[in-house]
Amino acid sequence: MNWEKNVRRVVPYVPGEQPKAEKVIKLNTNENPYPPAPGVQAKMVAFADRFDELRLYPSPTVEDLVKELALYHKVPEEKVFVGVGSDDVLATAFLTFFNSDKAILFPDVTYSFYDVWAALYGIPFETKKLDGNYRIIPEDYMVENGGIVIANPNAPTGIALGRDVLERIIAANPDSVVIVDEAYVDFGGESCIPLTDKYENLLVVQTFSKSRSMAGLRVGVAIGSPKLIAYLNDVKFSINSYTINLPTLEYAVESLRDEAYFRKCVDRICATREWTKEQLTALGYEVLESKTNFLFAKPAAYTAEEVFEYLKTKHIYVRHFKGERVKDYLRISIGTAEEMQELIQTLKDWRK
Amino acid sequence: MNWEKNVRRVVPYVPGEQPKAEKVIKLNTNENPYPPAPGVQAKMVAFADRFDELRLYPSPTVEDLVKELALYHKVPEEKVFVGVGSDDVLATAFLTFFNSDKAILFPDVTYSFYDVWAALYGIPFETKKLDGNYRIIPEDYMVENGGIVIANPNAPTGIALGRDVLERIIAANPDSVVIVDEAYVDFGGESCIPLTDKYENLLVVQTFSKSRSMAGLRVGVAIGSPKLIAYLNDVKFSINSYTINLPTLEYAVESLRDEAYFRKCVDRICATREWTKEQLTALGYEVLESKTNFLFAKPAAYTAEEVFEYLKTKHIYVRHFKGERVKDYLRISIGTAEEMQELIQTLKDWRK
Repeated sequence: MNWEKNVRRVVPYVPGEQPKAEKVIKLNTNENPYPPAPGVQAKMVAFADRFDELRLYPSPTVEDLVKELALYHKVPEEKVFVGVGSDDVLATAFLTFFNSDKAILFPDVTYSFYDVWAALYGIPFETKKLDGNYRIIPEDYMVENGGIVIANPNAPTGIALGRDVLERIIAANPDSVVIVDEAYVDFGGESCIPLTDKYENLLVVQTFSKSRSMAGLRVGVAIGSPKLIAYLNDVKFSINSYTINLPTLEYAVESLRDEAYFRKCVDRICATREWTKEQLTALGYEVLESKTNFLFAKPAAYTAEEVFEYLKTKHIYVRHFKGERVKDYLRISIGTAEEMQELIQTLKDWRK
Repeated sequence: MNWEKNVRRVVPYVPGEQPKAEKVIKLNTNENPYPPAPGVQAKMVAFADRFDELRLYPSPTVEDLVKELALYHKVPEEKVFVGVGSDDVLATAFLTFFNSDKAILFPDVTYSFYDVWAALYGIPFETKKLDGNYRIIPEDYMVENGGIVIANPNAPTGIALGRDVLERIIAANPDSVVIVDEAYVDFGGESCIPLTDKYENLLVVQTFSKSRSMAGLRVGVAIGSPKLIAYLNDVKFSINSYTINLPTLEYAVESLRDEAYFRKCVDRICATREWTKEQLTALGYEVLESKTNFLFAKPAAYTAEEVFEYLKTKHIYVRHFKGERVKDYLRISIGTAEEMQELIQTLKDWRK
């Protein structure tokens, strides 16, 4: 029995816990505390009448959603790609564009899936150290490389770079594809989508999971030059013709059509984030400036791990990463105002 | 601008047409003509009341569906894997298990995605010629190899091998993973699931797209030894933690719980298939014996391509493959009895 020698062995990414208990305050996976747009619910009811359509394959090119996304972002349809969450989009982009012997570059503190994809597909990679303030040093990305991926705003730090900084990096790398992962951009970041007109090698990735309250639906998006999108589609169609299911396509379209609701939720989360930051700072926490729906915060009197474990006993789940450069911090997703008040009160009670 | 030199270039699989016109008889992608189980519709209505849950990530381990599949197939939960349609499951299995320098083996006439995945992931492959009756020669698969994939029943031929034949191949290959792709098994084939107890290296893949009328939902399944499934999950979790969306999980569970409805639809399709086969044979067609929801048939007076184009003008879509060994045949999915009557009448009218 020697079949195991041919197996691809990997160490997978570990997602945040999905606790099953009732009455939990879940601030550990950057989910949105508000429901999706009301139109999504109406569409769910309407789709039930047409449930027999489930017997048919969805459109492989998901053109209705592509069209709506193109309208929303004011780009041609040829610049839009859709996948099963931004993880699927990013994984497919790694497989498509990072196909050389040169190392791809990304920061040492960033989304922890990048090195997992690199390992999976046998892509050499090199991490570049963020500076003392957890900021990217742009010059680090102006050396020979096989590709670049930068989360902006970054995770788990929450820190955003200006579009001008990204443009310097993109302009310096005409021989590489540069992926800008904008999972959190709607909470105050500056999108690089406008740069996709100018730079054929720029791929911008976004998601419906955070600002659009649809983590449970699995929709991710990439926007880039028509050439880049065509290559990405070739690889996607070499894996699975039909990835986005029929109802999901229609729900995603509904979400994009309700800009007022979208803005209201995002604004509310940003306001709650700033309130939470003030409160944590008052408690002595060191809190990085965030342009996302989470805060990266270093507790004062206790270690991050102690606070993490304490909060768990109070049924409040936040995220703690054990890596050397991040272990002193907690990543706290922004919930409703009430949830964050309870978090702060719980922390205050402990200090008494 | 030299970023293109690093791009992975592939020739993707081309799925069957999804015509947009009304009043089409669609017999080109092996979809089920009957709706999913009625419980699925009820669950859709019920889920709309809980649509706010879409803001949360689904369970990464999809344990509710895994549990239901384990019950259904009478296997332990550790033997069950779920993906976004069987294409996703198969692609992930290729990436996981076919990771050597030796060629993987599959028939020259089979599902046309196998060589696409092999090319995508850089897996060497060798096709083995089916015999004159489009049957596998088992001894062809008893040579050194890096893995084996066999569709049973096979597509586009519809021909099924007995479990005993498959077992001989599996038993002869303890050093390779053998994938048996059972997308069509519910229409009269003999599943190899019982062999997964005996052979650690056997992976059986099934789908909700054909017999369960849920092509639009994207659910595929693999059953194999706990060791095999663990490796598969490691790779899956290295690509995307959350692939199956929340509502889909619940709808798939409902489908599994209505065995009576499932059997009724499958039996009806098999009866319609046999009727259609008789009719085509009476028209002079050469029709292979099918254990699937389609027929592979060679027209008499005209070429397959001529019949294909003629039917299209009558808004009847069937599938024609241009490959040398299959170009004389049409693959005709089994629709409702009424649809197949119309197909036969349309063919008769042409001959008048």
